[in-house]
Amino acid sequence: MMIYFEDVQVGSRHTSPSVQVTEAEILAFACAYDPQPMHVDRKAAERGPFKGIIASGWHTAALVMRLVADARPFGDTEVLGLGVEQLQWPTPVRPGDTIHSESEVVAARPSKSNPAYGIVKLSITTRNQKGEVVMIHSPSCWVPRRPPVSQ
Amino acid sequence: MMIYFEDVQVGSRHTSPSVQVTEAEILAFACAYDPQPMHVDRKAAERGPFKGIIASGWHTAALVMRLVADARPFGDTEVLGLGVEQLQWPTPVRPGDTIHSESEVVAARPSKSNPAYGIVKLSITTRNQKGEVVMIHSPSCWVPRRPPVSQ
Repeated sequence: MMIYFEDVQVGSRHTSPSVQVTEAEILAFACAYDPQPMHVDRKAAERGPFKGIIASGWHTAALVMRLVADARPFGDTEVLGLGVEQLQWPTPVRPGDTIHSESEVVAARPSKSNPAYGIVKLSITTRNQKGEVVMIHSPSCWVPRRPPVSQ
Repeated sequence: MMIYFEDVQVGSRHTSPSVQVTEAEILAFACAYDPQPMHVDRKAAERGPFKGIIASGWHTAALVMRLVADARPFGDTEVLGLGVEQLQWPTPVRPGDTIHSESEVVAARPSKSNPAYGIVKLSITTRNQKGEVVMIHSPSCWVPRRPPVSQ
């Protein structure tokens, strides 16, 4: 079901499914996109401040995108990001962690530049299996306005 | 060479190497982390507002992380993100695009919570081969303070 801007309600909440992150996936992502020792080198990571491998923050962000896409907060309407106002990684994601996200619609306004769209701002908190917050972010998304009914 | 917080100069700039993004990589990333039609379904994407496949914004962010890691703005000191104050994707990345990043140190202050670290804020602008801005973001990073010299 397509959801249009007019259907989005400020205050509505979604809880995503959860996903477990493996060490192999953390290493593969980091080798491709963030090949720093704390993400790819077990021995160096053990000597570092986190005492073991941690996921790249951008890997955490990618995993959260997958959780949000699977939660389908706008039904069949795609989640198209315009930007993110604030992004924090208070606790790192480690091999074996299971994370899930909770999102809330915090604002919705018509686009000034494109009358066919509205801009919906979400606040998303992602936690690990211990309830520790691993990521907070507030993305703003383009959501199409309902097309006028043909007469 | 390790770079410590005390070595970081506000106003210093780095230009990253550049990277070309293939359609295969855009599809692979999106299948794993953002499997929405605009990123994974050529036909649906052609009918959509961008008239073709675009990279997930989080793929763009991951590619930028790789560019920054390769540019090594802090030498052998790892780039450890605390968070990002503002992130925008003004223009999508498309198959075949070549992107590079320019970063500037815009602030540096000692950490209040951890005396062994400073917090360095960067402003990073990433452009495609036409000079169009594909991503802007301002990450804050932990950078270790220089250890006291033993007497």
